[in-house]
Amino acid sequence: MKKELKIGIVQHTFLEDIEANRRNNLASIRKLAQDGAQIVVLSELHDSLYFCQTEDVGNFTLAQEIPGEFTDFYGEAAKDSGVVIVASTFERRAPGLYHNTAVVFEKDGDVAGTYRKMHIPDDPGFYEKFYFTPGDMGFEPIDTSVGRIGVLVCWDQWFPEAARLMAMKGADFLVYPTAIGWNPEDADDEKERQRDAWITIQRSHAVANGLPVVSVNRVGVEDDPSHQTAGIDFWGSSFVAGPQGEILGMCSTDRPQEEVVTIDLERSDNVRCWWPFLRDRRIEEYGDLSKRFLV
Amino acid sequence: MKKELKIGIVQHTFLEDIEANRRNNLASIRKLAQDGAQIVVLSELHDSLYFCQTEDVGNFTLAQEIPGEFTDFYGEAAKDSGVVIVASTFERRAPGLYHNTAVVFEKDGDVAGTYRKMHIPDDPGFYEKFYFTPGDMGFEPIDTSVGRIGVLVCWDQWFPEAARLMAMKGADFLVYPTAIGWNPEDADDEKERQRDAWITIQRSHAVANGLPVVSVNRVGVEDDPSHQTAGIDFWGSSFVAGPQGEILGMCSTDRPQEEVVTIDLERSDNVRCWWPFLRDRRIEEYGDLSKRFLV
Repeated sequence: MKKELKIGIVQHTFLEDIEANRRNNLASIRKLAQDGAQIVVLSELHDSLYFCQTEDVGNFTLAQEIPGEFTDFYGEAAKDSGVVIVASTFERRAPGLYHNTAVVFEKDGDVAGTYRKMHIPDDPGFYEKFYFTPGDMGFEPIDTSVGRIGVLVCWDQWFPEAARLMAMKGADFLVYPTAIGWNPEDADDEKERQRDAWITIQRSHAVANGLPVVSVNRVGVEDDPSHQTAGIDFWGSSFVAGPQGEILGMCSTDRPQEEVVTIDLERSDNVRCWWPFLRDRRIEEYGDLSKRFLV
Repeated sequence: MKKELKIGIVQHTFLEDIEANRRNNLASIRKLAQDGAQIVVLSELHDSLYFCQTEDVGNFTLAQEIPGEFTDFYGEAAKDSGVVIVASTFERRAPGLYHNTAVVFEKDGDVAGTYRKMHIPDDPGFYEKFYFTPGDMGFEPIDTSVGRIGVLVCWDQWFPEAARLMAMKGADFLVYPTAIGWNPEDADDEKERQRDAWITIQRSHAVANGLPVVSVNRVGVEDDPSHQTAGIDFWGSSFVAGPQGEILGMCSTDRPQEEVVTIDLERSDNVRCWWPFLRDRRIEEYGDLSKRFLV
């Protein structure tokens, strides 16, 4: 018997105008709910431009307290449309203490739970270690009316350990709000290797753990305010994969899209019985995974 | 500066006649060495049919002591052709104690090291838990004249933990001798999902760890001696991926092949600097990976 869940994914471009971004997000949430979505997933830091292209203390004014106007707005959106929402924000926790935080809203508008991004990147154009303190809430899935959601954020997607721990805590599916793109000056073959690696590693989390994976990215070019680089060309390609890593739906690399993709949560159980990886893990031999390196 | 290594991969079909299989393997090793291969990788249990389709005590006579005639034969092959060889055998360690063991030969014919398959499958047609005691040597790469090789075997390929531990122990690249195939009665779309999942999870180990991956499978249909199933259609698709998971070479799904694929070990360092996942692992949060499940 199928246990279907309709997932709405919102792949947007963003403006400097936060109110405009929120209006666009709200319009997509409403449309996807009308199209039958039971949960809507937004991309990472979807209320603003990707401000981490430079290290600018002025950007800390973008941060939101939780609870606060951010949770008021998206809580109302969830209640208004009757859908679960996975949202993402720059969280101000205390003076000088900020996080990159996903907030999950129940369909009645309440906050179902939060997740603070655990793995923080830092490479040219993605200066996140300046802004975001690494999460201190661990890898804890969030219970909602549509299932137990293993919410992780962007850079977390490169770490099999994070996906595994969410699966071991009973996550029904994984969700990755994301903001990743190309250096526009890179060669086409390098760009394709990067995008393909990004798809591959996330599909592999579905395979290794026998559960669906939802990844939602922004799209379009955002300029580098410092003009030191050619900016970032966010590659879109938001997708949903089933528990064998099979692609169930994928957005374009170059335009905004909002799509409903259906997953079958019952299928995870079947797949895990055919390929019982959780049965065969050599847990007594995995202790060294808590080390930095072994030579 | 490039640090190229030419890898020979041998994708064969096998017969009941062990001597014939060895002759074919030897011919491929010689040919690949002539074609410039510095290391030759054979598939899993390449001296025999895949005997694990049934649980038959008679099959224990296939097992080899190490050292013994198996290591004499392939050691001589390595010395004769001047190449490193990754070979695979059914190891008899003691009465009633058998393993699925990879043996790496140095190009002078000496045994460089062995690896006993750590994760043992058991599903219809693949009754390996009957034959093979899980490995007790841990995840230890093997040093050779062509680099430090993270040898893992078949079912190990589904476990990100195994790949990670080999990378953390300084493996330059991973090698998976494999015997995996389809139930010929499965639907075509299910077959493709399985093969694609198998490719995806192994490419993801390259991505997650920034190193090349070599996977060598057998090919062709082998009958089920019990006639309870339609046998196994081994899907070939042996491949080499670079450190971004990019496919550098892949064999067919349906015929024997021997190919030389060149990897660039210097590229791993570049890729790891661009995408410094090893830098950002949250090791203080990974302790629970040594648990079976967390709910």
